[in-house]
Amino acid sequence: MVSRAAAVQPASLALLEVSWSCYRTIRSRWRAWVRRPANPWKVETDMRRRRIYEGKGKVLYEGPEPGTLVQYFKDDAGSFQNEKQGVITGKGVLNNRISEYLMTRIGEIGIPTHFMRRLNMREQLVREVEIIPISLIVRNFAAGSLAERFGLQEGIPLPRSIVEFCLKSDELRDPLVTEEHITAFGWATIQDLDELVQMSLRINDFLSGLFYGTGVKLVDLKLEFGRIWDDDEMRIVLADEISPDSCRLWDLKTNEKLDKDRFRRGLGKVEEGYQEIARRLGVLPEAGPIDMKGPEVMQ
Amino acid sequence: MVSRAAAVQPASLALLEVSWSCYRTIRSRWRAWVRRPANPWKVETDMRRRRIYEGKGKVLYEGPEPGTLVQYFKDDAGSFQNEKQGVITGKGVLNNRISEYLMTRIGEIGIPTHFMRRLNMREQLVREVEIIPISLIVRNFAAGSLAERFGLQEGIPLPRSIVEFCLKSDELRDPLVTEEHITAFGWATIQDLDELVQMSLRINDFLSGLFYGTGVKLVDLKLEFGRIWDDDEMRIVLADEISPDSCRLWDLKTNEKLDKDRFRRGLGKVEEGYQEIARRLGVLPEAGPIDMKGPEVMQ
Repeated sequence: MVSRAAAVQPASLALLEVSWSCYRTIRSRWRAWVRRPANPWKVETDMRRRRIYEGKGKVLYEGPEPGTLVQYFKDDAGSFQNEKQGVITGKGVLNNRISEYLMTRIGEIGIPTHFMRRLNMREQLVREVEIIPISLIVRNFAAGSLAERFGLQEGIPLPRSIVEFCLKSDELRDPLVTEEHITAFGWATIQDLDELVQMSLRINDFLSGLFYGTGVKLVDLKLEFGRIWDDDEMRIVLADEISPDSCRLWDLKTNEKLDKDRFRRGLGKVEEGYQEIARRLGVLPEAGPIDMKGPEVMQ
Repeated sequence: MVSRAAAVQPASLALLEVSWSCYRTIRSRWRAWVRRPANPWKVETDMRRRRIYEGKGKVLYEGPEPGTLVQYFKDDAGSFQNEKQGVITGKGVLNNRISEYLMTRIGEIGIPTHFMRRLNMREQLVREVEIIPISLIVRNFAAGSLAERFGLQEGIPLPRSIVEFCLKSDELRDPLVTEEHITAFGWATIQDLDELVQMSLRINDFLSGLFYGTGVKLVDLKLEFGRIWDDDEMRIVLADEISPDSCRLWDLKTNEKLDKDRFRRGLGKVEEGYQEIARRLGVLPEAGPIDMKGPEVMQ
């Protein structure tokens, strides 16, 4: 109504329209500010683009082009084992860099990944995949739930690398599942599982070597995969992230933990663990730890 | 010393020897009686034969011939899930009969078992096997730990029969394990597992039919196997027992539980469940329920 009026009597009503628009903007900002959640970034982002999925450590947003997503790395840390919730300052920035580096290296040995390119400090552009609801854990040394399940001392080398499957379900707490469960309930086929295991073992071999070269022991790692359809052809690609959130990484000499277990077990110096891994891989942002907090609002 | 003296002067010393022997026997019996534990049977048995193993529901004793064992069925009931301990009066007598019946039928369809013959109300003679430390759970309907693990409603039919492996370990509470764990830690080979799964699926098919015929739904069952060496040839045979302790058995019409879950979940009428299964299979001892307590001391 205002617009139509403005077309008739431009001068006087245009001023009214601007005033009205200003009022509405201020009112809307004020309301948003009053109702703002702890992290203002989320609101800003959600106002601009569609949030596809939010997990423990990441948010996925609709990407700039069809078939792409933006993967945002949060500082939030959660742990099933002790229901612990918290924030590891700068974790998202570091994981973004670490995962970029490792995904790129893995792509170079011929294993396809969803990673396209890093966009900014906390975000990377990835290919949209149809996620396979099974995560693979590859274990080289006893730790975590495996040590608990079999009463093993943490850190003893396993007879060989062991691949475990877990169902991706926050509600059910990512339970261990067997091939029988997966195939009976139709979460993946035997052929899919064979491919997933082969890819996981290659990634594990490669990353074991890569980390060994930087004085770090790859105790275990969690991998997630997705399907990409090119025309009618389906390809399985590595998805998610590879970071101290998803790997157990111990210093080769001292066995000091440099991963999320520092948080899960309340060992302190949590940020330092992530920084040390980034440093050893040569991807610590140039500004160094001080810059880790970074601006909260990014696009 | 006494014997040598008796050879020299038979008449007088033989009397002394008899007195001495009587005194020693009485003293020994008195001491045993004074120190007797709650269940006098165990002491009597242990004085005569070597106890090989004691589990939650059974004791294994050295058998009368090499390569044989006596399997004694206890009334004791234990449950991991709620640390419940108790006694189900007459359970041992019924399980002995039920397991005899089912093992015999299974043997008849060409699946070798360790069962040889029932000896008395609570005991059966079995072949000694080298036990495989993995139990197999075959599941036809969601129940127990599977229902819990996947948040499924108890009793819904599974897409197909699902075979699970558990490590036999009281200390670790028989955890679910995968083929990866089993082969990596050397508990069994892939060939063993293939054979175990094939045997388990046949047994499950056969028993599903057999129970169906008596108006009972075989929800799931636990199977244990062992190796028997004939010269250099190894055979895998079904071992342990098959009973309402190791199966979930629901009435086909009412879904009433007729198995150990009545005890585990404190549903009451526990003895009646076992009796009902024995009755339907036609193996309820003729004297009927009243005789269930039976004499505690048996050979």
